[in-house]
Amino acid sequence: MSKLRVASFSLSLDGYGAGPDQSLENPLGVGGMALHEWAFETRTFRKMFGQDGGATGIDDDFAVRGFANVGAWILGRNMFGPIRGDWPDESWRGWWGDNPPYHCPVFVLTHHPRASITMEGGTTFHFVTDGIHAALQRAREAANGLDVRVGGGVATIRQYLQAGLIDEMHLAVAPALLGSGENLFAGLDFVKLGYSRTEHVITPLATHIVLMKKG
Amino acid sequence: MSKLRVASFSLSLDGYGAGPDQSLENPLGVGGMALHEWAFETRTFRKMFGQDGGATGIDDDFAVRGFANVGAWILGRNMFGPIRGDWPDESWRGWWGDNPPYHCPVFVLTHHPRASITMEGGTTFHFVTDGIHAALQRAREAANGLDVRVGGGVATIRQYLQAGLIDEMHLAVAPALLGSGENLFAGLDFVKLGYSRTEHVITPLATHIVLMKKG
Repeated sequence: MSKLRVASFSLSLDGYGAGPDQSLENPLGVGGMALHEWAFETRTFRKMFGQDGGATGIDDDFAVRGFANVGAWILGRNMFGPIRGDWPDESWRGWWGDNPPYHCPVFVLTHHPRASITMEGGTTFHFVTDGIHAALQRAREAANGLDVRVGGGVATIRQYLQAGLIDEMHLAVAPALLGSGENLFAGLDFVKLGYSRTEHVITPLATHIVLMKKG
Repeated sequence: MSKLRVASFSLSLDGYGAGPDQSLENPLGVGGMALHEWAFETRTFRKMFGQDGGATGIDDDFAVRGFANVGAWILGRNMFGPIRGDWPDESWRGWWGDNPPYHCPVFVLTHHPRASITMEGGTTFHFVTDGIHAALQRAREAANGLDVRVGGGVATIRQYLQAGLIDEMHLAVAPALLGSGENLFAGLDFVKLGYSRTEHVITPLATHIVLMKKG
């Protein structure tokens, strides 16, 4: 069955998925890069950005699993770009250049309508203004039986968690402190939401945890 | 110089130092035992509770360091016992039996006065009703140049953190989710409080982190 999944989602030890003050210079917020060290050196992430080489092993295995069987993505608007409010023009086309690493339909949650954008390599960005349920429905249709992956950010994941819709999460907890930013756990009771830990693997750069929703 | 230290303090992945609903049956709150798996099998913790054997290695090294050079402890009242409000009588003498694992003066924060209790093995429990600064002053005098260790729980540590008084913290993050309970990080910005990570070591049962306060 098609699942709604979070994968390769990096958190700081204090529970933040991004640092404060996201900007063009700091797409992950100030200090946010430190969360992703486990990913940067993997073969999968390097390949995603057109680089050769990179490490295989546990970190890479999780990166590979994250992309497997995914037929559509859902992103919060801040994950798509640093622009807030109305789109000033059509020039912003995501952080990722002409050929984004999705290669399938991507549904971007926003309050501000915008025409879909077809990118190179099979990625199409669709802008959904009628909420998380509508975005999920459109993503499931587009995924055509494959899984839908929620890319983030934290606010988007939290909305889907609170709605009880996420089936599986792979979190990578990095040994970094951010102090502030967007906290995944604050005020959410993962146990009451029905999640239990089904995997736990450590590497020098991350503690990998898989959470599955019961029932 | 004498330091104020937190050591071997176990946290869940979602930032909880204890589970909800502490009771006589669940001194660490519901589910809280899972946080301490890294410690239970160490030689140091086994010895502390009169058992032979136990593992040496990284986990044990941290346990040993936690007890080294400590001349006095500070505990929150809930760490001393499950009783709330006035002391009904003198019968509760801590969770640890006649010979508690402290072997030095222990200052218990409470709003309810009580006479000091001298236990076997060098532990004396003193009850401090005039706040965290008074407790620290008395503990420093008792420690006589050695360090003072804040044993917990979370609420007590947070008070000393907010007052800018903790010099060093060793946290052991266990791969467990608690969902609710007392959260160490909620609303506290460890970066703004001046802490930076100086050590990071992983074992199969915990991610050990040492945080030091600058300047």
